[in-house]
Amino acid sequence: MRSKGDNMDKLSDLGEFKLIEKIADKFESDEEVYKGIGDDCAVLKKREDYTLMTTDMLVEGDHFNLDWQTPWQIGWKSIIVNISDIAAMGGLPKWGLVSIAFPGDIEVNFAEDIFDGMAEASEKHGMKIIGGDTTHGDLLTINVAVIGEVEKENLCMRGDAEIDDLICVSGDLGKSWAGLELLRAGKEGYTDYYLQPKCRLKTARRIAPHVNAMIDVSDGLSSEVGHICDESGVGAEVEKEKVPISNKTRKTGEDLDIDPMKWALSGGEDFELVFTIPRERFSKMEGENPVVVGKILEEGRYLINSEKRKLGRGYDHFDR
Amino acid sequence: MRSKGDNMDKLSDLGEFKLIEKIADKFESDEEVYKGIGDDCAVLKKREDYTLMTTDMLVEGDHFNLDWQTPWQIGWKSIIVNISDIAAMGGLPKWGLVSIAFPGDIEVNFAEDIFDGMAEASEKHGMKIIGGDTTHGDLLTINVAVIGEVEKENLCMRGDAEIDDLICVSGDLGKSWAGLELLRAGKEGYTDYYLQPKCRLKTARRIAPHVNAMIDVSDGLSSEVGHICDESGVGAEVEKEKVPISNKTRKTGEDLDIDPMKWALSGGEDFELVFTIPRERFSKMEGENPVVVGKILEEGRYLINSEKRKLGRGYDHFDR
Repeated sequence: MRSKGDNMDKLSDLGEFKLIEKIADKFESDEEVYKGIGDDCAVLKKREDYTLMTTDMLVEGDHFNLDWQTPWQIGWKSIIVNISDIAAMGGLPKWGLVSIAFPGDIEVNFAEDIFDGMAEASEKHGMKIIGGDTTHGDLLTINVAVIGEVEKENLCMRGDAEIDDLICVSGDLGKSWAGLELLRAGKEGYTDYYLQPKCRLKTARRIAPHVNAMIDVSDGLSSEVGHICDESGVGAEVEKEKVPISNKTRKTGEDLDIDPMKWALSGGEDFELVFTIPRERFSKMEGENPVVVGKILEEGRYLINSEKRKLGRGYDHFDR
Repeated sequence: MRSKGDNMDKLSDLGEFKLIEKIADKFESDEEVYKGIGDDCAVLKKREDYTLMTTDMLVEGDHFNLDWQTPWQIGWKSIIVNISDIAAMGGLPKWGLVSIAFPGDIEVNFAEDIFDGMAEASEKHGMKIIGGDTTHGDLLTINVAVIGEVEKENLCMRGDAEIDDLICVSGDLGKSWAGLELLRAGKEGYTDYYLQPKCRLKTARRIAPHVNAMIDVSDGLSSEVGHICDESGVGAEVEKEKVPISNKTRKTGEDLDIDPMKWALSGGEDFELVFTIPRERFSKMEGENPVVVGKILEEGRYLINSEKRKLGRGYDHFDR
């Protein structure tokens, strides 16, 4: 969707510093920001409790495709993937730094649309973008680094699971990968979620005081449960028939002749929360509608259906 | 220098999570780090005074070249460019987040060498790498985000210049671009500095209590003085003959038949400091050997030689 219209301003004409001025106008400031965009570093006045830091890089061709996604959607997603990581720790996103490498022939409008998507995703979640780096690169590449905060009592780490905890997910899985497979196949259908994913910040904040371990679904349920087991030194069993997959995702599976369970277990980018909670605290989840998909064991990792199987791996960026 | 030997392990065989384990081993932890690599976010315990945040992205072909630079040097540089930004604010680097997109055919040793360069540059400057993102991309791309701290009395912003301040630089300019031009021309000579640049963290910390505005040389002296003028709402004059250029850089200019003043004014990546200081405080600089290259004016931007000319622009990543 990178327009090739002759009348569009090119970044190479506008120049780096004019672009930075345009970007700075898009992002609000805040009283804790002593200096945002426009110096060697952003300057913040204070911080308390635990500080969270996370970063994610999105590369053209790997994490987005200019034939499918609008620049606004690319900007939106680049923020959501990071806020989802902050949410999965039980925290709140506060400050973002954005780096973008633009191919030189890109239109200024295209670049601005990316920042508009970033601004909307940030604003929706109470985060401020306060600095970054714009540069040139032959592939459009976006890196976002986010600083967040979390109160000690709300911090939820992957390593906090306890034996006999229930394993829960906050919503449907496989929905993002379903859209990706449709787009790859050149077919129409349920692609909305893949193109403009959501994250579960509000849910995470509400449940954080009650849950033990928490993680977001970046690489599929198998991978996320595996991370919880690795960090907590425990095992787990996941009951296949309990994994929530929506009718839209199932329909996509039928259309493409692919088992949507594969997307739920090893796809990723659903940005739902996977968390563990002691059985006696599950009543605290009233109103949140989490789905119990399994439980934490002393050891072993199993996917249970009619038979007990070893739990596989999730998505690996280098495995192709 | 990306080796193509058949016996090397490939990232695609090792997998993303094994790579992360290898990376985590390279970076020391710290008592302020409640959780480093291995969760959705890094978790820090506290912070005081001003917090600094900066980020820089380096893209293969634009910011480094695998024919010239070793992976270790690429890793080193990716850290130095960020620490230089922290230094230019008068601060100390504390925490780093590293994102890397690797082409899939890259060797594990190559990736490890990058992280070794990062680890050495970080350690030398008292910074800890505590998290990041490893992913796939067709161009090797590195983003580093750094969090630093600065005491209120040491904060030096671009906007702090005062009329009649002396404009000083901390050392030779043009030395990085000289090396780049040699490498582009396929010639040997003074390329050491370009390949493994230094930054002026110690100098910056010593002079920070005394100076007004400060910035590091990323895009050339003209650009940096221009930023100080923009942010401080002042003008400046730079005396061309006072701009420090080393004999090695002059010799490179002769060999390539290029005026090295061009590299000093509009090249960049020297990572020297440009700062302004009131004349009466200049005695505080004893032992630092800064070079006075001009002064802050009420308005206008001039390059003075035999005649007074308008000061040009520095390096622009989109201007090619």
